Amino acid sequence: MTYHPHIPDGSNATIHSAVSATGTPVYGETYRIPARCGVAVIAKDGDLLNINNPSGYQVCDFWAFRLNNLNEYLSMSHSRTHLGKLIPELGDTLVSNLRSNMVTLESSDTPISHDTLIAACDHHRYQQLGVHAYHDNCTDNLRMATQAIGQKIPLVPDPFNLWMNVPISPSNTVSFEPPVSSENSRVLLRIHGDCLLVMSACPQDITPVNGEGKNPSHLEFSISN
Amino acid sequence: MTYHPHIPDGSNATIHSAVSATGTPVYGETYRIPARCGVAVIAKDGDLLNINNPSGYQVCDFWAFRLNNLNEYLSMSHSRTHLGKLIPELGDTLVSNLRSNMVTLESSDTPISHDTLIAACDHHRYQQLGVHAYHDNCTDNLRMATQAIGQKIPLVPDPFNLWMNVPISPSNTVSFEPPVSSENSRVLLRIHGDCLLVMSACPQDITPVNGEGKNPSHLEFSISN
Repeated sequence: MTYHPHIPDGSNATIHSAVSATGTPVYGETYRIPARCGVAVIAKDGDLLNINNPSGYQVCDFWAFRLNNLNEYLSMSHSRTHLGKLIPELGDTLVSNLRSNMVTLESSDTPISHDTLIAACDHHRYQQLGVHAYHDNCTDNLRMATQAIGQKIPLVPDPFNLWMNVPISPSNTVSFEPPVSSENSRVLLRIHGDCLLVMSACPQDITPVNGEGKNPSHLEFSISN
Repeated sequence: MTYHPHIPDGSNATIHSAVSATGTPVYGETYRIPARCGVAVIAKDGDLLNINNPSGYQVCDFWAFRLNNLNEYLSMSHSRTHLGKLIPELGDTLVSNLRSNMVTLESSDTPISHDTLIAACDHHRYQQLGVHAYHDNCTDNLRMATQAIGQKIPLVPDPFNLWMNVPISPSNTVSFEPPVSSENSRVLLRIHGDCLLVMSACPQDITPVNGEGKNPSHLEFSISN
């Protein structure tokens, strides 16, 4: 079967979880991202995205695309080059594949470790981890969340993995560790340009990426201006 | 102007540098990649790509796509996840965005540092570095090299940056340093599945990525089976 970037390998409730038909949110309203699911939302230039992590141990895979051309997207590799660092810090602005500003990390509780290095989990990842049935995954959540608001993504960019704790050893190996944040930890992202944003509450329950309990939980977000 | 991933921002001799009309090489023949240019070539499952670095200080941006579906490509983020490390070592196999084997690093002289973290240079990068006129860049070399053999890429993946020396500090900052290899340093890559391969002799002459002299030079390659 030919691979198309926007077609999910399976499905879950994400496909029915749009904030509205077009993805336009009600400003100030708190939306829930159910455990193991994703949501897409449209934000305008200058808007503030507030993501809350009730459990404190739940990773949020985050993507941003330019609303008027989805071939421009938040890029981890261009952001690493731009920032000269692997993990963005408070006040840092991440850029697109065309090196224009996309999101600024305006606030995040301390300590939080975010990740720019690891690909979103997908069907193939869980098969390789020994899962035989369909397993919820962030890549499909991205595909379904965008489909749910009538958008079709041309590729699956690398996500900005909020709260994901992937320490780098002196020998340049990486490991998957539980998040280090506490309950109701928040991340605030300032959005540059009109963007399609997608968040996935990572359903990884085989490695301890979402905590020692391997029990993925929900997230919440709101948009303000 | 709407951005399309396959359209170059400018041009150089890469557009006329095909190894053949379809990209099929003569096995065993040594091809030259002129300084600041790129070349695309078709390789079959099991082929060995031998890249020679005459100067020893020239970075080679490398990409691989599945020949029968260019939406599957060699992915640095999936390879980092698969390998659990940031820099592939001898014997390591890098994978695609669908987590299938793409290339194995069969041999490389010691010491060589390769890079998986940094985006290919592009028009925007050089503008931000203060260049006003068109500057040759690896992203355009990828676009032109594939166009020269009748292929149209659906996206610009992150490259595997051969010989690129990007040390990571304990505080997770990265810096752009001159290559550490010597004259006629070689990299051998075993190809898995039929692939479209692209190499670019990086034209970066503002940072010391291609040596302290900031003098980009040529590369050579051959394919055998």
